[in-house]
Amino acid sequence: MWNQPDLKISRSALATPSENYIFLIDLLLPKKSEVLHFLDAGGGQPERRAVVVVFYGCLEHIKEYAVGPLPNPTHHEDITLKKYKKEPPFTDRPVTTGEYALLFKFLNEKVFLKLRKVLKESFGVTHNKTLNSYESLPRGVQSGDRQTWISFFRDFSGMYIHPVGFEVLINHRSTNSSAWTVERLLYNGQYFQSVEELNKKYEAGNVNKIVYKSIPNYASLEPRVKPTGLGPQQHYIQGQRFSVKNNQVLYLDWSFAFGLSSLTGMRVFDIRFKGERIVYELSVQEAMSVYGSVAPGMLTKFLDSSIGIGRFAHELVRGIDCPYAAVYVDTFRYIDVSAAQRFRNSICIFEHDTGRPLRRHFADFFHNSYGGMPNSALVIRTITAIGNYDYLWDFIFYQSGSVEAKVHATGYISSSFKIHDSLKYGHQVAENTIGNIHTHFINFKVDLDVLGVKNVFQTKDMTFKEVPLPWLPGRKAKVPHLVEGQLKTEKEAALRYGTKTPRYLHIASNQTNRWGHQRSYRLQVVSFSGEHLPETEPEERSMSWARYKVAITKYKEEELTSSSLYSQNNMWSPAVDFSQFIEDDESIENEDLVAWVTTGFLHIPHAEDIPNTVTVGNGGGVILRPHNYFDEDPSVHSPDAAYIHPE
Amino acid sequence: MWNQPDLKISRSALATPSENYIFLIDLLLPKKSEVLHFLDAGGGQPERRAVVVVFYGCLEHIKEYAVGPLPNPTHHEDITLKKYKKEPPFTDRPVTTGEYALLFKFLNEKVFLKLRKVLKESFGVTHNKTLNSYESLPRGVQSGDRQTWISFFRDFSGMYIHPVGFEVLINHRSTNSSAWTVERLLYNGQYFQSVEELNKKYEAGNVNKIVYKSIPNYASLEPRVKPTGLGPQQHYIQGQRFSVKNNQVLYLDWSFAFGLSSLTGMRVFDIRFKGERIVYELSVQEAMSVYGSVAPGMLTKFLDSSIGIGRFAHELVRGIDCPYAAVYVDTFRYIDVSAAQRFRNSICIFEHDTGRPLRRHFADFFHNSYGGMPNSALVIRTITAIGNYDYLWDFIFYQSGSVEAKVHATGYISSSFKIHDSLKYGHQVAENTIGNIHTHFINFKVDLDVLGVKNVFQTKDMTFKEVPLPWLPGRKAKVPHLVEGQLKTEKEAALRYGTKTPRYLHIASNQTNRWGHQRSYRLQVVSFSGEHLPETEPEERSMSWARYKVAITKYKEEELTSSSLYSQNNMWSPAVDFSQFIEDDESIENEDLVAWVTTGFLHIPHAEDIPNTVTVGNGGGVILRPHNYFDEDPSVHSPDAAYIHPE
Ligand SMILES: [Ca+2]
Ligand SMILES: [Ca+2]
Ligand SMILES: [Ca+2]
Ligand SMILES: [Ca+2]
Ligand SMILES: [Cu+2]
Ligand SMILES: [Cu+2]
Repeated sequence: MWNQPDLKISRSALATPSENYIFLIDLLLPKKSEVLHFLDAGGGQPERRAVVVVFYGCLEHIKEYAVGPLPNPTHHEDITLKKYKKEPPFTDRPVTTGEYALLFKFLNEKVFLKLRKVLKESFGVTHNKTLNSYESLPRGVQSGDRQTWISFFRDFSGMYIHPVGFEVLINHRSTNSSAWTVERLLYNGQYFQSVEELNKKYEAGNVNKIVYKSIPNYASLEPRVKPTGLGPQQHYIQGQRFSVKNNQVLYLDWSFAFGLSSLTGMRVFDIRFKGERIVYELSVQEAMSVYGSVAPGMLTKFLDSSIGIGRFAHELVRGIDCPYAAVYVDTFRYIDVSAAQRFRNSICIFEHDTGRPLRRHFADFFHNSYGGMPNSALVIRTITAIGNYDYLWDFIFYQSGSVEAKVHATGYISSSFKIHDSLKYGHQVAENTIGNIHTHFINFKVDLDVLGVKNVFQTKDMTFKEVPLPWLPGRKAKVPHLVEGQLKTEKEAALRYGTKTPRYLHIASNQTNRWGHQRSYRLQVVSFSGEHLPETEPEERSMSWARYKVAITKYKEEELTSSSLYSQNNMWSPAVDFSQFIEDDESIENEDLVAWVTTGFLHIPHAEDIPNTVTVGNGGGVILRPHNYFDEDPSVHSPDAAYIHPE
Repeated sequence: MWNQPDLKISRSALATPSENYIFLIDLLLPKKSEVLHFLDAGGGQPERRAVVVVFYGCLEHIKEYAVGPLPNPTHHEDITLKKYKKEPPFTDRPVTTGEYALLFKFLNEKVFLKLRKVLKESFGVTHNKTLNSYESLPRGVQSGDRQTWISFFRDFSGMYIHPVGFEVLINHRSTNSSAWTVERLLYNGQYFQSVEELNKKYEAGNVNKIVYKSIPNYASLEPRVKPTGLGPQQHYIQGQRFSVKNNQVLYLDWSFAFGLSSLTGMRVFDIRFKGERIVYELSVQEAMSVYGSVAPGMLTKFLDSSIGIGRFAHELVRGIDCPYAAVYVDTFRYIDVSAAQRFRNSICIFEHDTGRPLRRHFADFFHNSYGGMPNSALVIRTITAIGNYDYLWDFIFYQSGSVEAKVHATGYISSSFKIHDSLKYGHQVAENTIGNIHTHFINFKVDLDVLGVKNVFQTKDMTFKEVPLPWLPGRKAKVPHLVEGQLKTEKEAALRYGTKTPRYLHIASNQTNRWGHQRSYRLQVVSFSGEHLPETEPEERSMSWARYKVAITKYKEEELTSSSLYSQNNMWSPAVDFSQFIEDDESIENEDLVAWVTTGFLHIPHAEDIPNTVTVGNGGGVILRPHNYFDEDPSVHSPDAAYIHPE
C-alpha cells in the first residue's frame, strides 16, 4: 500500500497525526465456514489475507482493509463498515508512537521548560534528570474527547510505584499539534488552570510545596541477596512428548494450532482430542481494569486490547517465565512500527508435571490395589507486559480431555502520590505512594464445537426436593435432585455476575454417549471478580462483556471479538459493544455457539505488592471439561498410568 | 488400661459391641496457653498426653480419657463431659471392626444363606463368589437409631461403580447381635418386608428379576496400554532446600510442625515465617458429602471425620502421589485395632516448581530490564482413601509469605443400580449404574495468630461512589472506593454461603506496618460449593459449619474441632454442633480468633468419572496471604530471584 502514491502513506513510525499511517497489519482470520469446508470437507484452502489498519490523518478518518492473497497481495477491500457497522471517528484511534513523540515534545516545551524551578525543587528535575510519564484513560468524558491526564514518576526502573505528585491534562484532539493545550495541572493535590498560575502561586508561597528528596529505588527487581540456590527443575526423562511444527502442536491425544493477535493476544484454534474437534477457537479477548483514585492520573479505565495485548508479548526468560526445557517460539508483528518485528522466544510450550496425581485410588477394603497416574499437562504460554502489568496467559491441555485457559497477574501496580483523601482509594504501599484500588477483568472467547457446530446450551444444578422415604411410611426428607435445563436464547443465556447462575454450564451436542446422555463440554469458571462498573456510567458500554460470567451468542462473522482497537479512546460509543451481540436475542438452539467468559479479581494493593504483585492467588480462568462427552475417562488409555497389586 | 482388670477391657480388635473396647488412642493436644507459655515465654514443656476413647459395651456408655504423661502414663482423667458437655449416647459410637464382623456374619446367615437362589440367579453369587457391601449413612432418622442400609456390589476391584440392585436394611441397635433384625430389602427397585417375602414373591414371579450377566471390570485401574513413557519429573539441581526432623520442617524462611490426627487428618502447627508465628494451627476438620438417590443405599450423608480421615492416610506412591524425590514420612495410629499401626510413607514433603513465575516484570518503556523469580513452593501432603473416595490434602508454603490449604478429590464415585426414577438423581455412567449427584464440603480450621493472639476480623471491599471531577465543574463519575470494616461479634462474622460477603477477609493485628496499616493476613477462599442441606432437615446440625464460607470464633479449649467422632451416628443431636460456637455471639475484638473455612464443589457424576474422578477442577481451598503484614514482598530476599538488564 505504501507503493500506491495516491494513498500518501507515510513510511515513518513517527508519522504525525496529520499524516496517513499504516498502524497495524495482522492476520485476517478466514471465514469459519471456509475453514471448516477446507478442514472437514476437502474444500480448498481459504485465501490467506491480512487486515491493514490505516489512519488517514489528511482526511481524519480510519480505514481497515482486507489485503490478499498473502504473501504477495494483489487486491484490497475496505472492510471498515462491514466490521463495525460504522466508521469509527478519527478520535477513536489509539495514540501512535508519532503522536507520543509530539506529546513528549509538547510537554517539554509547554510544561517542563516553563516550570524549571518548580520541577527542580520539587522533583529534582535537571537538564539530564527527567521524570517519566504514565497516562490516565479514557482521554475525556465523551465521544470526540482526546484529552489525557499524564502523571509523572521518578526516572527509576519500576517507575510505576514512584509517583511524584504532579499531573498534567493535555488536550491533543487536533491532528495539528500546534493547537494542543495544557488544560489543567495538579501539584500535590492542588489544581491549576495553567502553567503560569502554578508558577505564580508557587512563587507567592500559595502552594503546598513538595521538597525533593533522593530515595533508594524500592521498585528495583535486582536481587537483594546473591542468587545461591536453584529450586527444583523439571526434566524430560524420555525426551519431549510433544512436537511443534510451524504453528501446529501435537501432544499425546491433543492437537491444535496457535497464534498471537497483536491486539487480543494468544489464541488457539482447531483443538482436537483423538482427532475430534472440540474447540474451534479459544482466545483472549480483553483485559480491563477500573481504578479508584482522588487524583485524575489514576482515575483510569484500561482496555488493554485497544493498546494491544499480544503486542507486548516479549521474550520469555528460561527457567523463570517458563521451564528451561520448554520449546520457545518466535512471533512476528506489525503494530505502530515501520517494519515487521520479530519477537524472539515470545511463546513457550512445555509439558508440566503439576505435582499431583491426575487420578488415583488406593484400596484396602475387599480388594487391595493401587492405580493412578501423575497429572502431566501441556502448557502454551505468553506473557504480556502492558506497561506496568504483566499478564501470564496459559492454555493447558490435560490428559483427561480438559482444556484450561488461565490468567495470572504480576508486574507493577499503578500508583498515585499520597494527597488528602487518597486513603479512600487504597493503601499506602511505599513512601508517599498509594496503591490504588482496582479491578482485573479478563474476557475469553470460547468457541466450542461439540461434534460439529450445531450445539445447545445446557445447564445442570442441584436442588433439594422433599420426597417420601418408602421404607418409613409417613416420613419425608429433603433430597438433592439433579435439575437440567436448556437456555434457548441469547438473553436467557447471558448469565450476569451477581445473580445466581446454574452451577454447571454445558455446550452440548444432540448426540448421546454410550449411556444415553448428551455429549457435552462443561465450562467451569474460576473467578474472584465483582462489579465492573455501574451500567449507568457512560463508559460501561465499552466493557459490557464484563456484566456476564458467561454469555452465549450465535456465531457471526461480524462478531469476532468482544472488544476493539477503538474501544479505549471512545468508551462512550465504542466500535464494539458486546451487549449488542445479544440484544437481538437470537435462538441458540442447534446453532454454532460461542461462549464469552469473564473472570477476574478485585485488587486492593498492599505493601506486599512492592516491588511486584505475586501470581499466587491473583488469577482466574475457565476449565473446559468433558461431561458425558466420552463413555469413560480418556486418561485410562494414558501410558502414564500405573497399577500395583499385591500377589 | 488393659492392665486394670476392673475396666474389663478387651484386647481383641474384634471385640463385640457388648465388650469394653479401646477404640482410639490419639495425641491429646496440650492447651494452647501452655504451649504458648512454653514456646514464647520459656515456660515448661506441657505434659504429653493421649486421648483414649473407650466404648464400654458392658455398661453401654462411652468414655474419653486424658492419659499421661507419655510415654509411660501414670494417671488418667475422664474428659468426656468437659469435651462434649454431655455423655454421647452409646449409639453415637462408630461401628467397630468387631461390629462389622458380626454384621457380615448376620448378613451371611440371615440374608445370603436364605436367598441362595435369588442371589445366584440375579448376581451370580455362589459359595466362592460373593458380593461386596457399602453402607448408607446415617443409620436411621433420629437419635438412638442404628439401622443401616447396606447395598451390594460386584466383587471387583473398584466395586463402588458395580452396584447390583440389591440393598438390605439391618437394625443393629442392640449390643447383642442376636437381637438384630432385617427390616427391609430392596431388589431392583422393589421393597420387601422380609427375606421370606422376597423369596416368596420371587418364586411366584411377582418380582421384576435381574438376570446375572458376567461383565468385564470397567472399574479396573490396570493400564489399558503398556506404560511406555514417563512424563516430566522434577529434580533438585542443588539438593534439597528443606529439612524434616521429627515432625519439624524448615524450608527457606518457613518453619512448622506437622501431625496427623486419626480422625480429622493432616494438620500443621506453629507456622512461622522468619521466626514470626503466623498460624498456630491449620488443620482439616471434616469432609462431608450429601447424596441424592431414589435407592436408600445411596441416600447418604457422610461425615468422614467420624469414620476417621487421617485413619486412611496410606502409603503414597512415588512418582504419582508425590514426586519421586519427595521426603516420605511414616505415621503411627491406633484406631479400631489391637495394637498401634505404622503407616509407611504416608506423608510426603517436597518442593515443587509450579511452572510459573512467582513474580516478574519485563520493561521496555524508559528503562529496559527484566526481573523475576520462579514460583517454587514447599508442599506437605497426605492422601486419604476413605472407602471409595481419595482426598488429596496439601498445605503449600510460598516464598511470598502465603500458605495455602488445598483439597482435591479423586478415586471412585459412589453409585447405585439403575431403577425407575434414578435419573432424577444423576446420570448413567456405566452398565445399569447411576453416578449419584452429591456435594463435597470440606472444613478447615485456620487459627491465625497475627503478631500474638489478640486479633480483630477486618473486611475490605470495593464500592462505587459518585464523586465530582474537580477539573470538570458540574461533572460527576462513579468511582471505586475502598471500604473497610470490622466485624465485632461471632454472629456478625459468620459469613453465610449464598449471601454477599465482603471480598477481602482479614485476621489483623492492631500493630501497623511501616506505612501505617494494620498488619494482617487475608483469607482467600476458593470454592465451588452451594447449598449443603436445608436447616430444617434434622441432620443439618451435624454439619452446621457448612453454612458459612468463613466463620470467626473466639478461641476456646472446648471448641477444638468443628465435628466429632460421634456426629455421623447421631447427626440429629451431634456431640459437636458448630453453630453453637457462635450462638453465644461473643466479642471477637482483640481476642484469639479462629477462622473456620468451608470449601467444596457440587459433583454431578458423568461418564468421565469412570473409572476414577480426576483432580482437574475438582477441588477447593483457602490461601492465607500477607496483606500489609510486611513492608514489602518478602520474596525480594529470595535467592531464586534473577535480574537482567542490557549494558
Ligand atoms: Ca445475536
Ligand atoms: Ca461453536
Ligand atoms: Ca462463642
Ligand atoms: Ca488465633
Ligand atoms: Cu492489580
Ligand atoms: Cu464426588
